[in-house]
Amino acid sequence: MSADYQTQKGQPFDRAAFESLLRRKTFLWQSFEPYGAVKGLFDYGPPLEGLENYVIQVWRDHFIRTEKMMALKCSMLTPYEVLKTSGHVERFADFMCKDPKTGEILRTDHLIKEVLEQRLDGDKEARGVKIEAKEDDPKKKKKAKVNKGAVKLDDAVRDDYTHILAVLDDFTGDAMGELIKKHDIRNPSTGNEVEPPVAVNLMFQTQIGAAGNSPAFLRPETAQGQFLSFQKLLEFSDGLLPFASASVGYSFRNELSPRAGLLRVREFLMAEIEHFVDPEGGKKHPKFASVSHIKLPLLSRKTQSSGNTTPEMVAIGDAVSTKLVDNETLGYFLVRINQFMEKIGMDMSKVRFRQHLENEMAHYASDCWDCELLNSYGWTECVGCADRSAYDLSVHEKATGQPLRARELLKEPYVVEEWMPVLDKKKSGPKFKKDAKAVETALEELTQDMREKLSITMDKEGKVELPVASVEGGKVELDTSVVKFEKQKRNVTFREFVPNVIEPSFGIGRILYSLMEHCYWTRENDEARSVLSFNPVVAPIKVLVVPLQKDPKFAPLVQRLEAKLDAKQISYKVDQTGVSIGKRYARNDELGIPFGLTVDYESLEDGTFTLRDRDSTKQIRASEADVIKAVSRMCKGKETWAEVAARLPAFESGAQEE
Amino acid sequence: MSADYQTQKGQPFDRAAFESLLRRKTFLWQSFEPYGAVKGLFDYGPPLEGLENYVIQVWRDHFIRTEKMMALKCSMLTPYEVLKTSGHVERFADFMCKDPKTGEILRTDHLIKEVLEQRLDGDKEARGVKIEAKEDDPKKKKKAKVNKGAVKLDDAVRDDYTHILAVLDDFTGDAMGELIKKHDIRNPSTGNEVEPPVAVNLMFQTQIGAAGNSPAFLRPETAQGQFLSFQKLLEFSDGLLPFASASVGYSFRNELSPRAGLLRVREFLMAEIEHFVDPEGGKKHPKFASVSHIKLPLLSRKTQSSGNTTPEMVAIGDAVSTKLVDNETLGYFLVRINQFMEKIGMDMSKVRFRQHLENEMAHYASDCWDCELLNSYGWTECVGCADRSAYDLSVHEKATGQPLRARELLKEPYVVEEWMPVLDKKKSGPKFKKDAKAVETALEELTQDMREKLSITMDKEGKVELPVASVEGGKVELDTSVVKFEKQKRNVTFREFVPNVIEPSFGIGRILYSLMEHCYWTRENDEARSVLSFNPVVAPIKVLVVPLQKDPKFAPLVQRLEAKLDAKQISYKVDQTGVSIGKRYARNDELGIPFGLTVDYESLEDGTFTLRDRDSTKQIRASEADVIKAVSRMCKGKETWAEVAARLPAFESGAQEE
Repeated sequence: MSADYQTQKGQPFDRAAFESLLRRKTFLWQSFEPYGAVKGLFDYGPPLEGLENYVIQVWRDHFIRTEKMMALKCSMLTPYEVLKTSGHVERFADFMCKDPKTGEILRTDHLIKEVLEQRLDGDKEARGVKIEAKEDDPKKKKKAKVNKGAVKLDDAVRDDYTHILAVLDDFTGDAMGELIKKHDIRNPSTGNEVEPPVAVNLMFQTQIGAAGNSPAFLRPETAQGQFLSFQKLLEFSDGLLPFASASVGYSFRNELSPRAGLLRVREFLMAEIEHFVDPEGGKKHPKFASVSHIKLPLLSRKTQSSGNTTPEMVAIGDAVSTKLVDNETLGYFLVRINQFMEKIGMDMSKVRFRQHLENEMAHYASDCWDCELLNSYGWTECVGCADRSAYDLSVHEKATGQPLRARELLKEPYVVEEWMPVLDKKKSGPKFKKDAKAVETALEELTQDMREKLSITMDKEGKVELPVASVEGGKVELDTSVVKFEKQKRNVTFREFVPNVIEPSFGIGRILYSLMEHCYWTRENDEARSVLSFNPVVAPIKVLVVPLQKDPKFAPLVQRLEAKLDAKQISYKVDQTGVSIGKRYARNDELGIPFGLTVDYESLEDGTFTLRDRDSTKQIRASEADVIKAVSRMCKGKETWAEVAARLPAFESGAQEE
Repeated sequence: MSADYQTQKGQPFDRAAFESLLRRKTFLWQSFEPYGAVKGLFDYGPPLEGLENYVIQVWRDHFIRTEKMMALKCSMLTPYEVLKTSGHVERFADFMCKDPKTGEILRTDHLIKEVLEQRLDGDKEARGVKIEAKEDDPKKKKKAKVNKGAVKLDDAVRDDYTHILAVLDDFTGDAMGELIKKHDIRNPSTGNEVEPPVAVNLMFQTQIGAAGNSPAFLRPETAQGQFLSFQKLLEFSDGLLPFASASVGYSFRNELSPRAGLLRVREFLMAEIEHFVDPEGGKKHPKFASVSHIKLPLLSRKTQSSGNTTPEMVAIGDAVSTKLVDNETLGYFLVRINQFMEKIGMDMSKVRFRQHLENEMAHYASDCWDCELLNSYGWTECVGCADRSAYDLSVHEKATGQPLRARELLKEPYVVEEWMPVLDKKKSGPKFKKDAKAVETALEELTQDMREKLSITMDKEGKVELPVASVEGGKVELDTSVVKFEKQKRNVTFREFVPNVIEPSFGIGRILYSLMEHCYWTRENDEARSVLSFNPVVAPIKVLVVPLQKDPKFAPLVQRLEAKLDAKQISYKVDQTGVSIGKRYARNDELGIPFGLTVDYESLEDGTFTLRDRDSTKQIRASEADVIKAVSRMCKGKETWAEVAARLPAFESGAQEE
């Protein structure tokens, strides 16, 4: 992939040079390097930390503030039971194979992929097709000690391998085990046979408290905390749907062999939205009409099945009306995701929306689109936008007996027979004292299923245990003298339903990494001069202040500029080193600083300054007030350089930038 | 404490009412409530999440941008070795006692404190002194089954108890065990004797990777990652000190019996600064002169020793020149912390700086001041500002052999004899191939201590293991044929030193909780009408838009206002419910919305709107442009309500607010 991948200027992308820049300019490094570093954990240095903060603020403004979402911060430490219910204890796992002779642990899907790709490459070589070097994993070639070189395969075998690679993601552990036997797949670095695949859960486990009886995990997604807060948010919304919650927070994934830099890490920032909607009425969105004309690059399930990977530009209104995209809400979010990518300065020719294949989706999902960004590792899922249906709220409701549902007033009420708890308050009051009210509420909130279940237990054992969150121990015991469960007729005036959830889920680290690649290019006249052309809205440092040379005369003007920039809360850097202005600009182009403010002898005389645009290296010259205002407006996204250059006088520097 | 604690209006603080407001308005709740909730873990709902985001942005602007700090984001997952070196594996612990009959686990210092305080209360009662109800822990009275009531103590015993309570924080586990025996301290809820104190580490432990050989912890502070990044930051600063790094990130503490709400939790956001400074030259700060006149409420060690708890207002310049505060850098940060508290709207009469007592400081610290905020739980440490000396960098350097130090060019070079590794490159080249350069660098970077150590090992065993971060396995083996360690003379042209660290460390959760208490009060005429008077700069929602009544005529104006507020990125809420305007304001005063914009029939005629100030309930009336501009300026902290009210025409509403 890397061989085809190009910068925004159409240059071949040199990943080694790019990574060297990131290291040199302290964008990121592996954590705990003095202790030998830990794979899959990265520290962000000042430029990347700053970029992340600006991107998050744009995200918050674009989604939380503009869409009036309910921002939540939920705990990362999550009790075992919660993730048992959600299915993560069982299903959040990767399959591993062990090399019994060396003890090496290999991810099963990676192993199969590597070996089959090698054989296919060998086949191509034997058939005289040139193989392009793969740069994904520089160690691959070295490791493949048992690479048999140019070996031609039967046509049927070749087609079989190709098919396996296409559908590998859907294989169970057992199926992969059979594949390994059938095709004699071995550890490529030793040639040894491997043990059958074993599922290894990817959550980090720990323990809450000292008593040792509260196993817990670090959450694998922020979503579960949001689901469990649903009832509170519903109340706060006066019971009205739709509404959305949103969380920007960390999740964890105990990758077994992390690679591909920031794309697969063990600790990562996510921004997740849970949009709760009544499943009846087609999941319409009130603001859909305002975006229906907007075209998106959609790569449909159908196109993919035909072997094509070129997305089509489709107006989202058409996509929804033809049912290519399942519903308005999903469609609305796809547009908003696209707009967000544009706002933070993504190269929009490297953005597409890919629909999940039928067998790629979770069993409960009704439709799912990934926003994929092209980077040197290939098309990378950076935002998932799934319709999770009523799955999560339903399983938590079932597990806890606490309702996670909404109501709609009916136009025509009707009568129903159902289980009612009949509480003897004369007994429950003295028995539970200050907790009596909480016990009563807990009874009222029980689902019908739970009431029937408790009624059966009560008949059998004469008593039941009732979960009551606020009392000590979390539950109370009730016997037949205190409560009875009876079937009663009730007038139904509202419809109760479990809302469906549409979930746009953003992987911030992947977005940042792709953004850095999209912004990276080198000057036409000099490959060594690289540039990170961050959009001024997200650039970590906005302005480079450069006095022409080391001359104390410039100090008062520099200080004035600093004060003005501080007053506007614009981040800046002063470069007073003795090297030429051109070199100082070149050095800071690598930090992605969009604007340069030069203080020269003319500034001393007439109070004007030159303002330089990083991408074009063009300059204008204007008064202090004018340049500061222009910078401020460009950093807020209210004006572009082209607009500023059109209204303020151009400045032609005598010397070319070196 | 709670009994004396008052709101900013001098009203008795009603914690039950305050907590009820926080719950009702979804500020926060215990995490995972449907599963019975987990102690010490809290979810933030929309108002508190929003408040936190604004407070963090003020913090970033006040410290990172203004002081040009180097922002870092380091990993939360931290390998065992790192925290072993830092001392956390050994010392980050609390002592516990077990009640052998019930299995109950009690924090030893809490147990001693509770029992001795009870006895002192009993003594006071016996001596006829009225005891004020303590509201810290409503369960305390209930739990104390073995409270012996009014029992008079010997004067000597009473003084002994008082002394123990004052110095309890300094006791070791063994000393507390002796105390328990000597004074017959038992589990107050059962009357049982307890087992001797056992140290329980407070870090959450987990495992990185599947292999089971990489134990790790969730970090207990963000500081360690910053220390380990020191060398990179120093390079980025062209080798020049002082500079500061800063991290806003989560830390974890596996509290054994968390209580006091947000003040003691298991997962918490910190904002930590590590300011690296040359220990020679008095730790001066370049901007100190600009703040030296500013007075702070300082509660010195000396004042505390005399039994007094009233801080003195001292100009920081005087405090440093009299050595009350150890150095300029520490003093500068105390001022900046104070200014930060002011910016976010803290009640400054409830802020003080308390110096640590000699025995309260870490053994390596040279001075330490806490910024304490008064809330209904008492004076609470919310920011620690410590001089950690060279401790952390030194221990990591010693453990890893990687230098964590800076250099200063000497005016007068001199000659020194020291250990040098002599590498045979003809052998190391072929042996280590592409890693040869890394091995050479690792050798060069070894400290003198480490070189001497390796030389001794080499003499004994003929080979040594050298840590090299970038090679597989993290180390290489070298024998005498490849490298020798020799004593050589060297011309010293620079001074090498381990920088000292001054560390202001902010507990964001405690700050937010105290801020909410400081902002809480009730209207004079109606106790039920409570207000959270958040400063507009940090208020989660800035504007409430209220159409006078349900009349479709108002819709276009409301939409226009929304568009204008959106364009300025000002968060707002539209309240179109049918209740009276006064009620709508009252309801939203509890959310701390600072401004109300009313759309009425006059607005339809002349395009003017009334703007209401939450705290005074005063209103002005002006054009759309004027009110939006005023709101925008007040939300940026550029203008106050008093200034706006002085320049725009007042509006006297016909009806009083209900």
